[in-house]
Amino acid sequence: MPLYKAPLRDMQFVLNDLLKVDQHYPTLSGREEVTPDLLDAILTEGAKFAEEVIAPLNQIGDQQGCTWSEDGVKTPDGFKEAYQQYCESGWTSVSARAEFGGQGLPPSVGLLLSDMMGGANWSWSMYPGLSSSAARVLEEYGNEMQQTRYLPKMVDGTWTGTMCLTEPHAGSDVGLSRTKAKDNGDGTYAITGTKIFISSGEHDMAENIIHLVLARTEGAPEGTKGISLFLVPKFIAHEDSSLGDRNGVTCGSIEHKMGIKGSATAVLNFDGATGYMIGEENKGLTYMFVMMNTARMGTAMQGLCLGQLSYQGGLEYARERLQMRSLSGPKNPDGPADPIIVHPDVRRMLLTQKALTEGSRAFLYWILMVVDKANCGATEEERAQADDLLHLLTPIAKAFVTETGLEVANYGMQIYGGHGFISEWGMEQIVRDLRIATLYEGTTGIQALDLLGRKIMGTGGQALMNLTKIIHKYCESQKENAGMAEFIEPLAALNKEWGEITMQIGEKAMQNPDEVGAASVDYLMYSGYIALAYMWAQMAELALGGSEGDTFMASKLKTAKFYFQRLLPRTESHKLSMLSGADNLMAMDVDEFAF
Amino acid sequence: MPLYKAPLRDMQFVLNDLLKVDQHYPTLSGREEVTPDLLDAILTEGAKFAEEVIAPLNQIGDQQGCTWSEDGVKTPDGFKEAYQQYCESGWTSVSARAEFGGQGLPPSVGLLLSDMMGGANWSWSMYPGLSSSAARVLEEYGNEMQQTRYLPKMVDGTWTGTMCLTEPHAGSDVGLSRTKAKDNGDGTYAITGTKIFISSGEHDMAENIIHLVLARTEGAPEGTKGISLFLVPKFIAHEDSSLGDRNGVTCGSIEHKMGIKGSATAVLNFDGATGYMIGEENKGLTYMFVMMNTARMGTAMQGLCLGQLSYQGGLEYARERLQMRSLSGPKNPDGPADPIIVHPDVRRMLLTQKALTEGSRAFLYWILMVVDKANCGATEEERAQADDLLHLLTPIAKAFVTETGLEVANYGMQIYGGHGFISEWGMEQIVRDLRIATLYEGTTGIQALDLLGRKIMGTGGQALMNLTKIIHKYCESQKENAGMAEFIEPLAALNKEWGEITMQIGEKAMQNPDEVGAASVDYLMYSGYIALAYMWAQMAELALGGSEGDTFMASKLKTAKFYFQRLLPRTESHKLSMLSGADNLMAMDVDEFAF
Repeated sequence: MPLYKAPLRDMQFVLNDLLKVDQHYPTLSGREEVTPDLLDAILTEGAKFAEEVIAPLNQIGDQQGCTWSEDGVKTPDGFKEAYQQYCESGWTSVSARAEFGGQGLPPSVGLLLSDMMGGANWSWSMYPGLSSSAARVLEEYGNEMQQTRYLPKMVDGTWTGTMCLTEPHAGSDVGLSRTKAKDNGDGTYAITGTKIFISSGEHDMAENIIHLVLARTEGAPEGTKGISLFLVPKFIAHEDSSLGDRNGVTCGSIEHKMGIKGSATAVLNFDGATGYMIGEENKGLTYMFVMMNTARMGTAMQGLCLGQLSYQGGLEYARERLQMRSLSGPKNPDGPADPIIVHPDVRRMLLTQKALTEGSRAFLYWILMVVDKANCGATEEERAQADDLLHLLTPIAKAFVTETGLEVANYGMQIYGGHGFISEWGMEQIVRDLRIATLYEGTTGIQALDLLGRKIMGTGGQALMNLTKIIHKYCESQKENAGMAEFIEPLAALNKEWGEITMQIGEKAMQNPDEVGAASVDYLMYSGYIALAYMWAQMAELALGGSEGDTFMASKLKTAKFYFQRLLPRTESHKLSMLSGADNLMAMDVDEFAF
Repeated sequence: MPLYKAPLRDMQFVLNDLLKVDQHYPTLSGREEVTPDLLDAILTEGAKFAEEVIAPLNQIGDQQGCTWSEDGVKTPDGFKEAYQQYCESGWTSVSARAEFGGQGLPPSVGLLLSDMMGGANWSWSMYPGLSSSAARVLEEYGNEMQQTRYLPKMVDGTWTGTMCLTEPHAGSDVGLSRTKAKDNGDGTYAITGTKIFISSGEHDMAENIIHLVLARTEGAPEGTKGISLFLVPKFIAHEDSSLGDRNGVTCGSIEHKMGIKGSATAVLNFDGATGYMIGEENKGLTYMFVMMNTARMGTAMQGLCLGQLSYQGGLEYARERLQMRSLSGPKNPDGPADPIIVHPDVRRMLLTQKALTEGSRAFLYWILMVVDKANCGATEEERAQADDLLHLLTPIAKAFVTETGLEVANYGMQIYGGHGFISEWGMEQIVRDLRIATLYEGTTGIQALDLLGRKIMGTGGQALMNLTKIIHKYCESQKENAGMAEFIEPLAALNKEWGEITMQIGEKAMQNPDEVGAASVDYLMYSGYIALAYMWAQMAELALGGSEGDTFMASKLKTAKFYFQRLLPRTESHKLSMLSGADNLMAMDVDEFAF
């Protein structure tokens, strides 16, 4: 297994130089102020925890996996102890509100930490990660009883939380879900049904698990409009938050999966379990979307941080493994062969890893600032604007960074040659652990429909225009900067084309709604490459302004060039493919697919 | 696990309609003639064996894997019995020469069978597959003793064979290998060294294992020029091929791998083991290349047949799984939702699977005819011409079909949503089993260097010109066919561009040899898409000539359109990337890759 090293230098570059967080954090309201020193201390301590405590459990987590018995689910050796240490160090409460025992820091801080925790051990990081998303929902929509009895123990990590959406016949189509909530007449409901794919749905790391469950009350409308959200604890809490009765929810089994084996994926059977309605009846999906949006950003982080880990592993091997001579003459004449990093194609793989990973970091961290603004912007208008931008960027971030993250992880394996396929090296585990990221929290196809159908067509293109304006403004600001021409010219051209293509698809979609679905995934990937080009252009600008001999900045500039010359051209084929229309997809009769 | 169904209809279409094998087989010399009826009978029987005997062992093979103990390696339940049945049915001897007990059919027949055996159970199929490659080497280069004592039992499957190239420090760079061969002075050698990644290196399916081992005699030149090939049996055979002494080769362990867990990947320790030199001293690599070329075509087959299996699984699920309504109105109004095959993006994934799989089948089967010609063409000239073409096409086939096969397999998972990640469905196993295909028998990077460096630049572009001439001639023949214009115009343009780009890279490479490596993988993928376009154009032509109401032909035409409109545009981004030159790869100092 490659030894995880938190990319602190790059994180600091993105936060301080690119995003200028020293000017960002003071503009937020209702949150503890984050000073540069405080942020630095948090990241440094977080890096230590990630590298020293949970990274060493990553491979053993995969080997042992979780095990189910009638008594419950056992997590891999060391997971529980690491979690206790995590709670004791106060990491669970970073971004929670002070009134519930949290540290009241802005949401971005928690997500920055997940870049490191997830890179060190994604499976492990899912337990606290999902829990804090669940806590967010209660912070926002829980009533007083729910917030006082359940929230503080979730915030301090004594209890964990889940989100229970999926049922066997209802995945992307959550409107098909059948779990029932019968009004007990005493303010509680009896929840009955089966939920599947529940991450951290059962485990031995905490004494209680608080499930947030979608279910239908009696007589509720069909489809998504008749779904309410319930708090269903494993153990019902007394008024003082001490543990009461065991509730009627049991774990029937856990899934055998391709990866993230240290994360327990539970089938949960609710059998008249006591549930408390969160917020208003039939508005469950709205509330759950708060959690799902956070979870989507969390999943985007998975693409980033596991890509980072794979890059570290690939680079280490490429520098050490000696095979063949450079085509342009020996580079290690005293050794039996040259390190494989001398070979152009190995460099192509490494630079693809580096450009996608660092570009995605810049992109996602930028979105984290937008998350902060949407949540704690000083004015209503500022929050609303940020919210619109966030809604547009989230599906791009989720799908693009996980899809390209998988490419990065596969290159990490590929650099190892046959050894990449051998478990001992740990490179194949990264691919397996990451593979789920394009599936859960909405597949790539679902994200793409959300982006093009809801966010773009649904706003008549306005949401996109807000974004292309930002990029346009940036390009204009660099017009006179000759050194930037190689970045600004293609970026400005693509930014313009982006709007034009969107109009074309929009017009076709008015005739045939299938045109949206037919273009959607290529459109999303195309958008993602432009978004990363915007980030890389800005990083190139900083690098060009760097001082002589600053190798970090020199590296950024070279990586930006690589990105623009080798990766950005992918927009061409995505464009041609998406503009080819729906006919070539819809013409085939179902019976003609196979013989 | 999707139930494997041999794609007989498509195989017959490619063989009979596209490649016109009834005219091909009679032109071969020195091989039993293959009549259309005989071929049909072989494929039908092969399909039955694949579907009924080995497909049911595919998932259990993954779950149980192979297990090592001091007594040897145990293969998964049922593997041994299936292998006995395979031998008894005479499948091992199909393409072996009659004089060694084979059926003397042309090489293509054996490889056609591997499309089905491999699709049904790749791990299992590797045992007989590698064995027949090893037998091929002995047929070609073995001396009389080797051929009479060892070959017949390999041909009838009583014994199996391996190829032992890799050592811990010598993978792609086989010239670094250190295994020693000490002349015993009695016509035998004492072989000492460690070989790794030896597929079928130890198992319980056959009573003896014949290793073909690369090793250095004393005083041999360094590098690839000092490597000889040795036959090293697990048990030394008596003159009558009965088992004699246990030889000094032991299996130290087997690897834990991402996939193909039913295939034993052995570490073999040779400790003064008795070996017999095959052919001449220091020519081992030349002989081994015979085996490696067959193995490369076999690996290309892996991309094809596992892609086929994944497509079958994806299609089945897409037709059954009900989620959401079609954007253009309900297609299954009486059900709770529409089958997901109505959604454009699901169709995009399915059609990508179909177009790549069926296109690759046409491409690979075409190459199989070239393999036949190269081996059993009637004239020396015919054989030499075919051999040149084969050398050019093999690296494209191996790398392109495995890379795109992986995309196909990943789409199969993706169509299942979250369920794709769950082992029970079997879709993730296909991805894991296939992932090795871009690594072993030479990585994609190695194939690309072989293609662009050795095969194309090494012949001054002549080898490519021979191929582009074939395609050019075909395009010319279709010039007046108006219905074909949408295929012929882009194909002819790309075919011309292919030559031009090659010249450009060639010119740059004269200044800087790293330009070859810098362009190579994009160049190979670009070439593969053109090759498949050539196959799809021909299939479209056949389909356009099909009769009204022939749904098979209608499906081919629609798939061809999909390929040209949605996949062929990928050549654009590969072109832009490869023409961007070596600078963006080589400029980065090694120390600048990470901070």
